[in-house]
Amino acid sequence: MTERITKAQGSGGAATSELIREVFADELSNEYLMEMEDAAAVPGEKRLAFTTDSFVVTPLFFRGGDIGRLAVAGTVNDLLCRGAEPKYLTAGFILEEGLPVEDLKKAVHSMGECAKEAGIKIVAGDTKVVEGNGGMYINTAGIGFIKEGEELSAKKILPKDTVLISGNIGDHHAAILSERLSIENEIQSDVAPLCVMARRLFEEGVEVHCMRDITRGGIATVLAELAAAADKTIFLREETVPASAPVRSLAGILGLDILTMGNEGKAVFFVPKEQEEKALSVIRSSPYGENACIAGTVTEEAPGRAWLKTGIGGTRRLSPVQGEGLPRIC
Amino acid sequence: MTERITKAQGSGGAATSELIREVFADELSNEYLMEMEDAAAVPGEKRLAFTTDSFVVTPLFFRGGDIGRLAVAGTVNDLLCRGAEPKYLTAGFILEEGLPVEDLKKAVHSMGECAKEAGIKIVAGDTKVVEGNGGMYINTAGIGFIKEGEELSAKKILPKDTVLISGNIGDHHAAILSERLSIENEIQSDVAPLCVMARRLFEEGVEVHCMRDITRGGIATVLAELAAAADKTIFLREETVPASAPVRSLAGILGLDILTMGNEGKAVFFVPKEQEEKALSVIRSSPYGENACIAGTVTEEAPGRAWLKTGIGGTRRLSPVQGEGLPRIC
Repeated sequence: MTERITKAQGSGGAATSELIREVFADELSNEYLMEMEDAAAVPGEKRLAFTTDSFVVTPLFFRGGDIGRLAVAGTVNDLLCRGAEPKYLTAGFILEEGLPVEDLKKAVHSMGECAKEAGIKIVAGDTKVVEGNGGMYINTAGIGFIKEGEELSAKKILPKDTVLISGNIGDHHAAILSERLSIENEIQSDVAPLCVMARRLFEEGVEVHCMRDITRGGIATVLAELAAAADKTIFLREETVPASAPVRSLAGILGLDILTMGNEGKAVFFVPKEQEEKALSVIRSSPYGENACIAGTVTEEAPGRAWLKTGIGGTRRLSPVQGEGLPRIC
Repeated sequence: MTERITKAQGSGGAATSELIREVFADELSNEYLMEMEDAAAVPGEKRLAFTTDSFVVTPLFFRGGDIGRLAVAGTVNDLLCRGAEPKYLTAGFILEEGLPVEDLKKAVHSMGECAKEAGIKIVAGDTKVVEGNGGMYINTAGIGFIKEGEELSAKKILPKDTVLISGNIGDHHAAILSERLSIENEIQSDVAPLCVMARRLFEEGVEVHCMRDITRGGIATVLAELAAAADKTIFLREETVPASAPVRSLAGILGLDILTMGNEGKAVFFVPKEQEEKALSVIRSSPYGENACIAGTVTEEAPGRAWLKTGIGGTRRLSPVQGEGLPRIC
């Protein structure tokens, strides 16, 4: 095989087959994928969650992760946010000519590792090659099974619910920005699948009303959207929002609002006030949840808006991120 | 909203919401999509087909179709090839800065129309914006329900099966090439969902063993791959392969082999010899099937290879397309 991706590998012919054999098959092998049909045939369930995300992050490799881990964890987390158990993924690769095949192999290896961690199988895929500068885009679509009574939705948020944040925010955003600006620091992306955390909450009997991963646009965007969807008012207490010292410091130097910084392994949970301590302890004892905090509350006022109670006693409205945000963060 | 796509529309914030509201919601609206959760929650079934395809065709609009119709029909046809009834789609858009919003609207409109024709619902989506020259990539992933006894696979091909081709080949390839070379002719892409044709074969009691859509790489690639997967020998009779006069003429002038030309609304079916006439008549009476032909046969010789019986009495091996083929045909 060539060292760099060529148009021939997007032909659907001999060179595509070689690429599938030598790059994808080994890393992602499972009984469904290896049938090599036009579509995978898989066991189903009565109620399904179904979602998709495309990943265009740049750089492709960054401290704490890469586009491959991101592409699996991102879609897995979206399935979890519907209360589903993630089961199957598809992967669509759009490769730019000139991409080193080694980079593709590394990304595909990360996908395989992350899929194993998340207990999900990549059952079908597709590869296209376009002109460009050696970049790579990955789309994943995922199916999860929803058990009776476990379906989650913004509409299930209730007045008096407690808002929990599963850990330090801003890590992914800060890691990507640090790579782009060649800033040396210890910050690592938080990209991770939150399967164990989500599952354990159900298993421990926590009545989760809503879960949302805090991605592009940050916690401000997520809470503003959830408040509107639920038609409730959400208050976030600024001093309880968890973030690491290096991320706070970077945000301070660059003038960034950590509330609009993106994450790839953090979620916000809405649970009944009576269960807040139990939920906190379950999340803190789960992988990726050690810095979880109780960070806010819900009231029944409409129209649904999200507010920040600032450290100095003020209140300001939380809005979805305006303008570009950080382009190509995921 | 701006007239051209900007980075802000990929932020996941306010501008993304506006784009979703003004471009996607109207054209694709259904009860699942409009819940606007991280994942759609949909009714499932015991056995599922699951597949994905990314579409990078250039130009975005061509005679007979556009990238939107292609993105829906392509994935729908892959589901049909597994014997499934297409049910749900996701759509992931990667938009290049500068893309006219009107072009996006036209493509999304085509997706909505094609989804209606195919009886499939687009239940979840995602939008990213990257640098570039105003181009657009669309990924679709699809779920279909497989009824008991209707699962199709290359492995079900049997010796003595008849090979049917559902209509004229080469149309999509010739249409794309004509656009690129500014050749004026009457050729239109054949891009179409083959739901009615596939469903009717089952309903009429035709025992379909295998169905495969004839896309990138053409009938030569498809038959070579199927012969290998089934470990049977497939013979194709050159003089019975259907193609229109303008496509044959274009292929002749440009020195193209119509057997390696791509299609987006044609399939090859394998059925028991006893049912070949019935299958032919069902296909011919279905939308997009009027030019169907009986075109070949299967023998049990291994290793699985595909052969062409030429018009002058010779035999040559059919191979998957070598080299680039026609880049970005789909």
